[in-house]
Order: sequence, then structure tokens, then C-alpha cells
Amino acid sequence: MLLHHSTWQEVDDYLTRSKAIVIPIGSTEQHGPTGLIGTDALCPEIISHEAQKDADILVGPTFNVGCAQHHLGFAGSMTLRPSTMIAAIHDWVSSLAVHGFERVLFFNGHGGNIATINAAFSEIYADRSLAGEASNRGPVKCKLDNWWDYKPVMDMCMKTYGKGHGSHATPSEVAVTQWAYPDSIKTAEVSPTIAPNGRFTDAEDYRNKFPDGRMGSDPTLANPEDGGKLVALSVTGLKSSFETFAAS
Amino acid sequence: MLLHHSTWQEVDDYLTRSKAIVIPIGSTEQHGPTGLIGTDALCPEIISHEAQKDADILVGPTFNVGCAQHHLGFAGSMTLRPSTMIAAIHDWVSSLAVHGFERVLFFNGHGGNIATINAAFSEIYADRSLAGEASNRGPVKCKLDNWWDYKPVMDMCMKTYGKGHGSHATPSEVAVTQWAYPDSIKTAEVSPTIAPNGRFTDAEDYRNKFPDGRMGSDPTLANPEDGGKLVALSVTGLKSSFETFAAS
Amino acid sequence: MLLHHSTWQEVDDYLTRSKAIVIPIGSTEQHGPTGLIGTDALCPEIISHEAQKDADILVGPTFNVGCAQHHLGFAGSMTLRPSTMIAAIHDWVSSLAVHGFERVLFFNGHGGNIATINAAFSEIYADRSLAGEASNRGPVKCKLDNWWDYKPVMDMCMKTYGKGHGSHATPSEVAVTQWAYPDSIKTAEVSPTIAPNGRFTDAEDYRNKFPDGRMGSDPTLANPEDGGKLVALSVTGLKSSFETFAAS
Amino acid sequence: MLLHHSTWQEVDDYLTRSKAIVIPIGSTEQHGPTGLIGTDALCPEIISHEAQKDADILVGPTFNVGCAQHHLGFAGSMTLRPSTMIAAIHDWVSSLAVHGFERVLFFNGHGGNIATINAAFSEIYADRSLAGEASNRGPVKCKLDNWWDYKPVMDMCMKTYGKGHGSHATPSEVAVTQWAYPDSIKTAEVSPTIAPNGRFTDAEDYRNKFPDGRMGSDPTLANPEDGGKLVALSVTGLKSSFETFAAS
Amino acid sequence: MLLHHSTWQEVDDYLTRSKAIVIPIGSTEQHGPTGLIGTDALCPEIISHEAQKDADILVGPTFNVGCAQHHLGFAGSMTLRPSTMIAAIHDWVSSLAVHGFERVLFFNGHGGNIATINAAFSEIYADRSLAGEASNRGPVKCKLDNWWDYKPVMDMCMKTYGKGHGSHATPSEVAVTQWAYPDSIKTAEVSPTIAPNGRFTDAEDYRNKFPDGRMGSDPTLANPEDGGKLVALSVTGLKSSFETFAAS
Amino acid sequence: MLLHHSTWQEVDDYLTRSKAIVIPIGSTEQHGPTGLIGTDALCPEIISHEAQKDADILVGPTFNVGCAQHHLGFAGSMTLRPSTMIAAIHDWVSSLAVHGFERVLFFNGHGGNIATINAAFSEIYADRSLAGEASNRGPVKCKLDNWWDYKPVMDMCMKTYGKGHGSHATPSEVAVTQWAYPDSIKTAEVSPTIAPNGRFTDAEDYRNKFPDGRMGSDPTLANPEDGGKLVALSVTGLKSSFETFAAS
Repeated sequence: MLLHHSTWQEVDDYLTRSKAIVIPIGSTEQHGPTGLIGTDALCPEIISHEAQKDADILVGPTFNVGCAQHHLGFAGSMTLRPSTMIAAIHDWVSSLAVHGFERVLFFNGHGGNIATINAAFSEIYADRSLAGEASNRGPVKCKLDNWWDYKPVMDMCMKTYGKGHGSHATPSEVAVTQWAYPDSIKTAEVSPTIAPNGRFTDAEDYRNKFPDGRMGSDPTLANPEDGGKLVALSVTGLKSSFETFAAS
Repeated sequence: MLLHHSTWQEVDDYLTRSKAIVIPIGSTEQHGPTGLIGTDALCPEIISHEAQKDADILVGPTFNVGCAQHHLGFAGSMTLRPSTMIAAIHDWVSSLAVHGFERVLFFNGHGGNIATINAAFSEIYADRSLAGEASNRGPVKCKLDNWWDYKPVMDMCMKTYGKGHGSHATPSEVAVTQWAYPDSIKTAEVSPTIAPNGRFTDAEDYRNKFPDGRMGSDPTLANPEDGGKLVALSVTGLKSSFETFAAS
Repeated sequence: MLLHHSTWQEVDDYLTRSKAIVIPIGSTEQHGPTGLIGTDALCPEIISHEAQKDADILVGPTFNVGCAQHHLGFAGSMTLRPSTMIAAIHDWVSSLAVHGFERVLFFNGHGGNIATINAAFSEIYADRSLAGEASNRGPVKCKLDNWWDYKPVMDMCMKTYGKGHGSHATPSEVAVTQWAYPDSIKTAEVSPTIAPNGRFTDAEDYRNKFPDGRMGSDPTLANPEDGGKLVALSVTGLKSSFETFAAS
Repeated sequence: MLLHHSTWQEVDDYLTRSKAIVIPIGSTEQHGPTGLIGTDALCPEIISHEAQKDADILVGPTFNVGCAQHHLGFAGSMTLRPSTMIAAIHDWVSSLAVHGFERVLFFNGHGGNIATINAAFSEIYADRSLAGEASNRGPVKCKLDNWWDYKPVMDMCMKTYGKGHGSHATPSEVAVTQWAYPDSIKTAEVSPTIAPNGRFTDAEDYRNKFPDGRMGSDPTLANPEDGGKLVALSVTGLKSSFETFAAS
Repeated sequence: MLLHHSTWQEVDDYLTRSKAIVIPIGSTEQHGPTGLIGTDALCPEIISHEAQKDADILVGPTFNVGCAQHHLGFAGSMTLRPSTMIAAIHDWVSSLAVHGFERVLFFNGHGGNIATINAAFSEIYADRSLAGEASNRGPVKCKLDNWWDYKPVMDMCMKTYGKGHGSHATPSEVAVTQWAYPDSIKTAEVSPTIAPNGRFTDAEDYRNKFPDGRMGSDPTLANPEDGGKLVALSVTGLKSSFETFAAS
Repeated sequence: MLLHHSTWQEVDDYLTRSKAIVIPIGSTEQHGPTGLIGTDALCPEIISHEAQKDADILVGPTFNVGCAQHHLGFAGSMTLRPSTMIAAIHDWVSSLAVHGFERVLFFNGHGGNIATINAAFSEIYADRSLAGEASNRGPVKCKLDNWWDYKPVMDMCMKTYGKGHGSHATPSEVAVTQWAYPDSIKTAEVSPTIAPNGRFTDAEDYRNKFPDGRMGSDPTLANPEDGGKLVALSVTGLKSSFETFAAS
């Protein structure tokens, strides 16, 4: 059940069955020569939309611009400052809490978001920890799952791509978008085959170290079929995680 | 050309042809008994995605949660505080300016966003007005178009729906989503046929005055065919507006 | 009754009769070769102070610096960032709500303030929409009236000034200040007689397009007598609007 | 020369003679049984407007709502949060700096503002201290004068009112407003003759300790004639202070 | 009793005896050729830690970076913006209020902090003044003591150092740190013997006027023995002030 | 070399040798029946102060209140909201950058800080990524090390404490403080011997799940001798990490 495709009465009905919701959250940033700029938002959107097709899971809108300051050296990348992102997540969760949602699972597609999402959770919890019974909001709980972090997903990544998986513009995320958007498959020659890896700070530093945008990956290994398999594995993980979280 | 379905090199190429981009912007809020909660984000997304199919227009990610505090009395509605929305739009535009974008057209689907989007534009311009040559950002210009405000669109709305058009959960916006998402067409009996109209303040006030969420409208007049016509009219308006703006 | 010229006991008494207050709100910005920099704050102040002379209306302090970033290319113009203005209006209204005021009518003199004032109203309402019964503030309602927007006022402007009325440094607002401050009437030759009109973004852009500060207007048409008539018409509009709002 | 009663060209001319400006700053808060709620804004406004009548001093708009949270227990009092006030002062000064103003003298009427005004100065200076040559703003200097702090003013207060002067709703400030607004002179019996004095925290605490709003004062000692003398003494102090500051 | 060296059960016990706590607060900024950069944080820390040795006083962590933008022209100086400092003090006090602390005595070592600390107190009180019974926090009271402001301390400073005491990098504060940290005593020749005094704005202005960092002082007068005496005098002042405040 | 015990000239000299600095960062929060409330700030302070004794490392002030909202159910715990902590870290780093520091190593003692510290780094980098050459600050790089994360430290923890190490109020951190502050060693009986483990959200939730404050640990295993060994191992790790970072 997609929030955007539902009426308010349908959400009212859903709330009689469950107080939990999934929010896909990603980023809008370069993904190397063959990866789509929307990859990190598209992957959790694709997977969560699949998951709700045969499970009673409500999926909210996709939070599609995240923390990507380090990618601003590449055209099309967009970022929120972490302080803005915290404020926005705070507002999203506070809105959902008004309706009685008590469990919000952020289903994430971008490693660079993890710190700020967790900081946002603390910001939200702090309201109630500081105010106690006088709080303006009920005790909503949040959870962060990365779509690639369920063990079968990561196992397949390691087995299929090995050391070419890397950490940015990975073949797995490219494969997921290829499966979902076959008309948007891009091809390019990459050199070196496996991109360099390492630490980075700001956009200039990132571009200097990773000139085509990839980090440690060979995204040419991606194909739509494997993408479909990864989606299926992650869907299973999400369903299970959601069920446990909703019942917690 | 969709930013989310492009690579950074493709955006680099686009920037040699144009410094302009469209950002669909809407809201996640109840739309009466038959309207989708995502209506205000979906309409500008649908129309702008259509527009870029045969025109050289770059469309960015959809800003999908806006100013909807007055709808929080209905399940599923989500809001940003205006101050949060200003910060987020500021970050989006500042990111695009890094890459050399100089014209950002916000293509809007929600009347309740207009004030805050315009306030955000002033916030962005103020940086440069206060700093002059010492500004941290180049002189990017922003524009706000509402998808329904092109004259042929509004003419068709008035002619087709007359006094049943109203101002929230209108048959025109419902029709657009019906055309794009025929599997999500909802039916319901509404009473009175045309909802009441009037002013409102907060969520409790809104719910008291507009008990099923509609304002002044009879959304049961909507059908997918008319939705398709409205999309086509708005696409024409957007293409023309974008071309003029990009050349300004 | 002017808040600034009253004691707290007099306000206590007023609150037994009415829960409504008027806040004049304007801007401090250039108004062309003959307009006063304070015009947009002075006009609503002049009119609201007149209105309270023979009606039981409480008028608060004038909010005298507003959104005027686009005028910073002309000496003496001052601006708040919209985010600052939202915070300030929030504090003003929250203060008034402590005393039991439930209706705050912002009587506005500057078109550039409209978006931000409306955004501020949403920010205020959002507190209560998000917190419901746990809100830290009672359900105060706000309203925005522009002094020139009452129909008889605008009719006189159109009839008296025609196409020379324009949209900034208009003869009507200049006339109002001439009537109230005859010692500060300025004269200058303007060329062209009617200034250019159009869109603008930041201060540099505005100054380039409107080199003497006027937009679309011929302020030399102003005289104090017409100013007095405009004040009288707007006073009537304000009294009526206030009465209706207070009773709503 | 009043900024609000000047044109931008007149300010341009002024800037060829001086880079200094006066900003009257006060508060909107209860002033006991006979004091006006606007007292703290009116006093610096009255005095600075007098001062510019025969001296080349530019006086800007009055910053009329300040830090008065402790007075919110009395009807009509209004406050900014200190963080809001800092943001607003920052914007005012930044605006003036755009035009080349280099000296901003805040002429203050409220003891409760002093801490926050000084904090705002540090906030403004910190921009440049942290950015150095890369600063977005030139090196503007700010100064705070309280209208009552010039020695001859305080001498007259002590001599005229003695221990009845107190610290809030003082006869001196009441006298200044009586001189300027003789139609708004209020009378009341006060008991005890001299109000209690002491420390306070929030609004509830203040109201409990100072039930009629006065602190340590007997404002019934005020009369318009003394008010006129105090204005004259403070005008002299302001002129001298401004001249020195402008030349610094 | 040091909060940092206690367990939560020990604090629970303390709260049965007292609702008051001391927070040492200072700054990290240059203190001339012989003064330690930590002087302003170390002095209140040293004195408050001494005071709790034989009195039932709970001392919290030291707030060690304060308002020091004007010292940024000298290596090692660090500052918070006043708005950041207000937010941080707000959070510290709000945290303590959760546990039932009702009196928070900020024991200060830096004149440049005074304005912002007082502004922070107003910010904290404003929460409750604006919300009344609906406040999210109980009515905590705050107090600011400067370690040097107890009369016997200042008397000794004047008697011992005379006009060489000055206002920054004073022999008294240097002496206190010499007594506590004899291994960190620094020596240098200073010229002129007594540094210049005066007003300042930003870091560049300060460095220009006070080239070795001192203001009006001759810190070579300091010795550890006098430091010990000053500590003892200030300890007595703090104990007495705390006792009175806790009982208020 | 301790910043707090140095003069500005000594820091000037240091900057000719190195552009790197260590900032100990921790938290003020309950640490179970025997752990000190200051544990998480004390551990990195102890270790970094040891490290600088025989290495040319500059150690700044300790950031001693961090993200601890979940511990507010236990007396004495203090927290910053993550948004406040980001602002404060931003100011600290910006200050250091003024002096030419280019590498800031945050040496952390609290797992709950990690997300927010990393978010703060992104906030800092975003300034420059968004502004490029027009940035107000040079390209400073930040790094986060947890004192327990160097492999030999963690190896000793696992070997010495095994499954009694847990994740909060661990015997290793208690041991470190016992070694440094033998006069503050606390004893208590704990039951169960090894505390429960699990996830948590706000303060109420944490207290319900972990009634004596410990998570998964048996802190009674701690002794000062092991604390000294852990300090030595972490000192070695910090020295090596700092050297590499400073040279990067």
C-alpha cells in the first residue's frame, strides 16, 4: 500500500491494523559513468514498492535528496546540509505521529545518510526525553535499514562481484536500477576496471581522488537479471524486518 | 531528460546546452474521499515527466512533502514547517548553482506551498543581495509555475467542472492522477455533492469545516480521459514557460 | 486604542471586550525619487491609527522592517531574511496569545511581505496542528489585509492614476504619506514618466531593471488631498474587516 | 534626518557626509499602573528624533519589540526570544552595511535588552572574525547607548526622584513619554508608594513579586516638564556620543 | 561533589538534599604573553572544585569554549557564536531540569560571556513565560556569578595590582592558574608594562589595538601565592552565594 | 602540549611545526552503579593528555557534553540536541581553521556521539562544497577516532572481559577512570552480573530496559591496573593515528 496512492480513509483503515510505516530514503548524486544520479533514492523506492505488493506494508513518499556534499564536484548532485535534513526528518516523523504512527522504518539507499539519519532520530527522541509527560508528541520509535545490509543481499554481492563491488557506484545498486528501468541502462568504458578506494572530505577532495565518481567498484559487472535477484532478496529482508519492528 | 535517470556526464552535456532545470514540487496530504494523498506531488511530476519526453528539458527529483499543516487532521497527511521547507529549497537551489544551473523552475502542485516557495526565493536572493560580489553563490534565478495556472488549463477546468471545481480535491487534479495511475482510481459517494468552501487556520479548524477533506469541489466529476487532456494542456504551458525562462 | 499608548490595565479591560488586535506591518525600502523609505510601514500605521480613533480597535506596534532584499541596491533599504521574519512574527503572535488574544490582523503595506507573512501563519498554525491538545499555545487565528486591497481603495487608485499607478512607489502610497507628513513631501523630475515594469530577483537585478527604484508608476501624480481620501477609504475597509474577523 | 522620511537619494547624499546611523531600540511591555506599554521604545524614539532636528544625524526605524519575557504576565507585553532578536539585529546591521554604513549606534530604552544587543554585536563581529578577508560583509562597528546613562541624565534622575526612581516604570521614563504624548498621561494610585525591588526569572515569578508591574519606583513623581528636561539632557548626550562614534 | 566523578545514584541522593548545581563556564582564548589560553575556563573550574571539597555543592562539567570572537586574531583562541552558545546553555539547563534541578549557578570566568549567558537565561525563561502551564519544562532558575566579582576578591585585586590589574590577561587570573598549575607558569617581558585599554569590535580590530593580547594589565605582577589567596577569597564568595541561591 | 596550558605564542610556534590538533570529545551521562557520570569525557581526556606528554601533539579543550538524550532517565545525565552539537562542533572547527589548523582529530569517548560528529563533519565540508573558491573558510579536514577502537585496545577488552564487556558502562572505560582517578573508585553489587543488552529509543524506553543503566556489561570486572594498560595501548594508537593524519 503506497501512501501516495491511497486516500485518507484507507490510511485510517490501515492504522486499525498497524502503526508502522516505511519511508524510502536516499540521495541524488552522481554514481559514476554508468550509474544513475537517482540510484540511491531509486533502490529503496523500487524495493519497498515491490515489498508492499503482497504484504500489508504502508510505504510513504521517498525522501530523495540526502547528504551528498562530497559529490557536488559532479554535475547533477544535490545535497541537504545535515542540519536541514535533521529538521526535515523531524517534521516527517512528527507529522506521522499525529496520526498515531508509532514505528517509522527508514529504508535507506545511501551510506552517506546513515550518520545524519541517526542524528535525526536522537533529535526526535530528545524532545520526549527532555519533556517527559509534557511532551508535544507521543513516543514514536524509528529504525534505519539499509537495503543492502540484509545478509542474503550482501552475500550475493560478495559472491557475484567480489572485490569489484566497492563502496560507491557499486554493481549491485546499478543492477537494481537496471532491472527496474531497463530503458535507462547506460554503458561506458571504465578505467581502471576497479576504481580506487579511500577516505574523502569535501567535494573538491572527492573529485580529485575519484575522478570518474566511482569508489572501489566495477559497475560494468551489473546486469538487470542480477538486479532482479537482489531486489527479491532485499524485499524478503525488508518484509521480515518490518514485521518484527511493527510488532516490537 | 530526468535527472534521476541520467549520469553526471549526461548532465555535464546538458549544461552545455542549457542552464535551466525543472523541479516538480508538491505535497503529501489528504485529497478527500477519492483523491490520492500524493495528488499534489504526483500532478507536477506526471506533467513535467511528460514534458521532457520530446523537449530538451531536465527534470529534477520531486519535492514531495510541502506545507500541509492544515491537513494533519486527516490520516496520512505530512508537512514541513515553512522554516524547514525554506532551508531545504535553499539547499536544493544552492546545490544546483554549484554546477552552473542559473534558472530553476519550481513546477508546483499545491496552493498551500506558494507562499513558502516565494519566501524561499527571497531567502536565496537575500544571500546575494546582502553579500554582493563577496557572495558564496552565483546569481541563480528561480520561478514558480502552478501546473493549473496556464490559461488553457484553467479554461478547461472552468468549462468542464464549473462551480464543482472548487479549491481542494478538485476534479482536475483527481483526473490527472486517474489518467496516470488508472489502477489507483477510487470511488466514493460524497455528500454534499459540492463541498463547502471558506477560510481555515490549523488542522483542527480545517477538519471541523471540511469534514471529508474537500473544499468547494465535486471530485466525482473526474475521469481519466479529461485528465489526459489536462496533462496535455499543462505540458504545452510548461514547455513554453520553460523555454522563455531558460532564455531570459 | 494604541497598545503603545496604553497601560496593561487598559489592555486587560480591552480583553474583556475583544480578543482581536491589529498589527501594522510594512517595510523600510526605497520608494523611488519622491517616495519615503518608510512608505510601506507608514501607510498601514497611518491608516490603522486613524481607524482606532473612533472605533474600539487595539493597534499594536508597527512591524517596520520586512522582506526587501531586492531593494538593497538603493541606499537606506533594510531587510529581514524571510526565516528571521517568520521567527519574529511567531514570537509576536505567541506573546499576544499569552494574554488571550485570539485574532491577530496583520495590516500590511508591502507586497513583498505577503508570501513571508503567510508562511509565518503556517509556521504558527503548525505548532498546534502537530501537537494538538499538548500544544504550548492556544488556537490563535491570524489574517492578512493589504491596505490597498479593499475594493473602494483600489477603485480610486485605478480611476485616479490609471496606468500610472504601477506596482512600486505608486502615487497612492506616496499620497498617503504626503497627507500624513506634509513636511516631508519630496519633489523630483522622473524619466520616463511611467517607470518600466517586470520581474526581478535579487538587488543587483532590480537596480539594473529599475534604475530610479520605481516599478511601473508615476508617483508625481500624488497629492496630499488624494492621500487623505485613500486613508479614509482604507480606514472604512479596515474597520469592517476587523469587526468581521473579531467576531469570527 | 529620519530614514523613514527620506528618499534613497537623500541617504546617498548623507553617506557622502557620514557613515553613521542611530537605531532607536526598545521594548513593548507593561510599565506599571501609569506607564505606557510602549515606554521603552518611545523614549529612545522621542529623544533621537529630537536630536536629529538640528544635527546631521540619520535616525533609522525603531526596533520596538525586544526582550520582555518576564513581563508576559501583564497584558499587552510582547517579546522576542533572544535568538530571534539576535537574528533580526544581524539582518538590520547587515542591510545597513550593504550601503556603506560603518557605524551603527543602537540607542536603547530597555535594560532587559542590553545583554541580547551585546550578544548580537558579537554574533555580527564573529562573521568577520571567522572569515577574515573572505567575509561577506565589511567591518561595520556597533555601539550601545542607553538613553538614561549619560551622566547629566542620571544625575537629574537621582536628584529629582531619589529612591523613588527605581528600576522599572521609573518616573523618568514616564516623564519623557508624558512630555511627548501629553494626551496619553495616565493617573492611578499606587500602593506601596515605592514598589518592591529584587531579582526575577520568568513571567510568573515577576508577576508574583511585582504585582502592579513596577520595580522599586514611584512613577507618580513624573511630570511632563521634567520629561522635557530629561529629553534635552539625553539629546545632548546622544549628539556628543554620535559625533565621537562617527569619527572613530 | 563533582558530577563527573559521581554515579547517578549519588546524584539521586544529592537531589534529596539540594536542587542546586554549579556550572563553571569560561572561554578558550589568548591571555597575553604569559597567560594560559584556558585561563577563563580554568579559573572558575579551579575555584568551584576547591569550593566543593568541604561543602555540599555539586559542580557540573566546565563549559569551556565561550564567546571569544574578538580574540581570534591570536592563535589558539576558539569561539562559539552567541546563538550557538544560547542553544547549548539551553540544552544543558533543560537536561538538568529533567532531574529536578531548580537552581543552576553559572560560575563564570570571562567577561565576554556575560551578555550571552544572560541572553541564554532569557531564552530559557521565555519557554515558560510563553507556554505557562503547558510548558515542557519546570520553572528552573539560573544565576550568573563572576569569580572575581565577590567584593573581597576585587578588593584584593585593586589593592595588590592597582592600575596594573586591567581588564584582560589580568595578574589576578594569571595568578589563579599559576597557583593551580605551577608547572605551566610562563614568563615573558612585556612592553609597555601596562597594556593599552579601550573598546574593540572584531578580531582584526582587537589585534590592531592590543598587539600582545593584553588589555590594560601587567600580568607579570602575578605570583602563585597571591593566586592561592584569590582562590580562597572567591571560594568563600561562591559558597555563600550558592547557599543563598539554593535556599531562594 | 595542552592548548589550555599554552600561550598564544606557543601555539604560533606549534603551527610552524604542525597543522593538526586533537579534540577530546565525550559525554556526561550515567554509567551504571559504579561508573562515573563523566566517564565518556574523562577517558579521551585522560588518554590524549597522556599522549601529548612525550609527543608533539596539541590537545584542545574537552567537548564534554554530547548526545545522551537516552540517559536522561538517570540523574545527572546531560545532553545536547544533535542540531546544537553540530552547530558547536562547526564553531570549534571554524575557529581552529582561522589560525591555520588543517587537521582536527576528534578523539571520542561515546558511541552515541558518532552519528552526530560525522553529521557535523558533513555540515562543515558542505560549506566549502557549496561555495568552492568563494568559501569563507579554508579546506580543513576532520577525523573521528574512538579511544577503544584501536585494535590492541579492543583485543585486550575482549580477552580480559569477554562477554562481560558489553556496550555501556563497560569494565574497560570504568578501568580507565579508576586508573586516572583512584580516589573516585565506586563499588556496588550489580544484578544480574551481566546487564541485558538491546535496542532503545528515548530516555523512558532506556530506563525501562536497563534499570541500573548498564548495557550488556559487568563493570565490576574493572580495576585500575588494567585501566593503565588500556590507556597505554590507546595512547599508542592515538599517536600513530595522529601522525598519519597530520601528514595526510
